[in-house]
Order: sequence, then C-alpha cells, then structure tokens
Amino acid sequence: MEIEVLEGVFDANEIIAKENRSLLDGSGSFMVNLMASPGAGKTSVIMKTLEGVAGALNCAVIEGDIAGKVDSEKIAATGVPAIQINTGGSCHLEAKQVNRALNRLKLEGVDLVIVENVGNLVCPAEFKLGEDLKVMILSVAEGHDKPLKYPLMFSESDVLLVNKIDLIPHTDFEMETLEQTVLRMNPGVVIFKISCRTGEGVSDWTDWLKHRVKAGA
Amino acid sequence: MEIEVLEGVFDANEIIAKENRSLLDGSGSFMVNLMASPGAGKTSVIMKTLEGVAGALNCAVIEGDIAGKVDSEKIAATGVPAIQINTGGSCHLEAKQVNRALNRLKLEGVDLVIVENVGNLVCPAEFKLGEDLKVMILSVAEGHDKPLKYPLMFSESDVLLVNKIDLIPHTDFEMETLEQTVLRMNPGVVIFKISCRTGEGVSDWTDWLKHRVKAGA
Repeated sequence: MEIEVLEGVFDANEIIAKENRSLLDGSGSFMVNLMASPGAGKTSVIMKTLEGVAGALNCAVIEGDIAGKVDSEKIAATGVPAIQINTGGSCHLEAKQVNRALNRLKLEGVDLVIVENVGNLVCPAEFKLGEDLKVMILSVAEGHDKPLKYPLMFSESDVLLVNKIDLIPHTDFEMETLEQTVLRMNPGVVIFKISCRTGEGVSDWTDWLKHRVKAGA
Repeated sequence: MEIEVLEGVFDANEIIAKENRSLLDGSGSFMVNLMASPGAGKTSVIMKTLEGVAGALNCAVIEGDIAGKVDSEKIAATGVPAIQINTGGSCHLEAKQVNRALNRLKLEGVDLVIVENVGNLVCPAEFKLGEDLKVMILSVAEGHDKPLKYPLMFSESDVLLVNKIDLIPHTDFEMETLEQTVLRMNPGVVIFKISCRTGEGVSDWTDWLKHRVKAGA
C-alpha cells in the first residue's frame, strides 16, 4: 500500500489546486490569478478587462480581500457574477478558498474566471490556485526597481501589466530599466503598458487575453 | 516549578521583542518600525528623515528585504550605519532577525534606529519587533480606500505618513475621506502629509520625530 506524505502546506495546497484545474477543465473555463501590491489597480484592471472582453467572453470574478466587500459589490453592479472571499487576516489566497468559490459559481458557460488575489507582492506568488495564467500588475508609482526586491512574483508571472502609465511624467519611473530587469529574470513574460484611468493600452491587453482564452479553453 | 507554554509563533516572537526592548532601553535608543506597501516610498522616507534629524540625532538603519541590498547601500553611502536583513522569501520581519541586527550594531550613542520592514501592508503589522513607534506610509497612488481593506495595519500604526502628495492633482485621491476613515479606526493616530520628491511637509514629520525621540529616550 502506498502512503502519501504531505510535505506541509504547499503540497496540500497543490492537491486542491489540481482539483480546481479539473473543475475548470470540466466546464472549459480559463482562470486568471491576478496579483499586485495594494493600490496597484487590481479592481480597476478587472473592471476594464470585463468591459474589453464583453460580448466575446462570459466572465465571473472571485474577489480575495482580508476584509470588506467593496470590490465584489462594484463588480456585481456591472452584472458579472462575483464571489467575495474574506481571508480574515491571511495575506494570500489558497487553493481551498478558491475551490469553495468555484463550487458556488455556476461554471457551465463561463469562459473566463478572474481571481483577484490579496494585495501583496510576496506570498500570493507561492500558492498555486489551479490557474491558467498568472498576471501581475505593477503601478508606475511603485517604481521600476521592484523586480529586484520581489523577485519571485516577477519571475512567476506570465503577464506583467504596467499600470498608471499616465503618471510617468510626474515620477522618476524608467520603463526601459524595468523591462530589461524583468525580461532578464523572466524571458517569457508578456508585458503590457496600460492606464486604467485614460484607457491607454488596455485594448492591447484585452485583445491578447481574448485570443489566449479562446486558444486555451 | 512553572512551565511556560508558548502559544505558537506570535508568543515566541513577543519574547524576543521584549529582549530587543531591553537592548534599546540599555543604550537609550528609540526604535521606529517603518511599514508600507512595495513602492510607497519607505527608503525615500528614511533618506529624508535622516537628513531632517541630522545634527540632532545619531541614527542607524536596519533594512529588511526579501532579497537584495540596494537600499542598505544607498543609506550606508550617506555615512549612517546600515545593516541589511534578507528574509529569503518571508513577507515580514520577525523580532529575532532584528535582534541579530541590533546585536551587530553598536547601539551605544545611537538615538534612533529606523527599521525598514518588508514591503507588505498585511503581515508586518502582526509581528512586534520591540519598537517604540509603528510608522506606516500610504502612497497617494495607492488610493484612499486602503484602510478598509488592510484594517490591521491602519489600526496598529502610531503614525501615518501620506506620501507622494505631489501626485494628488493627477489622481482621484480624496484626502478628507482617507483621514475620516483612518481616524474612525484609530483615533490616536498622528497623520503627516508629505512628498519626498518635492520635500513638502517632511520637516513637520521630522520635527515631530525629534521631539518624540527626545521625550521617549
């Protein structure tokens, strides 16, 4: 008889992440794990993304926050199904929380599930949720030096959205330095430069995502 | 015989935080625990604070980062003793890491130790380091809605520095809403509005700190 040994919290999480994967595969749904610092613009990116893919993709949103439900209410007001997870202090989402949310959503007919992770540039990168795509946002206001300080998040992400590019003239942000640093750490990463405030660059991202979801699902 | 039961990681941390307290009391040093999201301006605030208290206070800096030593090199270049702690993945500083750093610093004659915590608005608030003062920074670019989403950090902090106020005209930031929300959660908090970029408001903060250190030490 084979005995399964769980190597602590990460292995246990990975098993449930695989369950999530099966759930999503069963309904042909694509899942994005959206990660960023507090205030980088996660909810704005979700709102703009929902707008950009409307008509092409049926969406649902899972909102992760330590407390509150401001974001899920904002999203539900647009008519897109939204489920709020409150982690009650924990600084990242785990696969089991997303599992509960996926089981409550009606996944049938849903093309794209966007999970907004807790605002944190560290721990969320360590916990797989069963996603198809890890997307991170860096706000221009955070500075171009962040990849060296938070290397795991920048190395693990499939997509980097550089948000708030409308602020560039008012900061010391060096886009070229950022891109060089990130591509050195993670040569496969796809970078989009956007401003949710002005709308600049957003359709490049949402067009890319539409193609990716249709190819991947 | 009394048997001490440690209730897990927080109690163990608290015991070492008390050791840190004794070390600091022994040398009459005051310690600030500086916390904020990635990119809110922790290192810039430290540089401006060192400038503002120069001549009045002898300082030392303990830099906490997941990886790298960019910040401690920047500070050491100003002639202020700086020690780098690399947490190697962990998203917050613990008292034991600060204990090692305090033991390596020559505390005798040091009036003010500034600890730069890991960029994270969640976990650092849960771990006491033995500090006199918890100071948090919120950058204007992060938005005025953050207190509701990261309530522990805003409730635990003695001082809130609202940084990057030069960006206010280019954002939807509502200072009054922020202040009302924070003061409802934490009526004793002292708020300073600053811009490390333009220098606006910085001397209000550093003057206050000078008085506080002299009163507290």
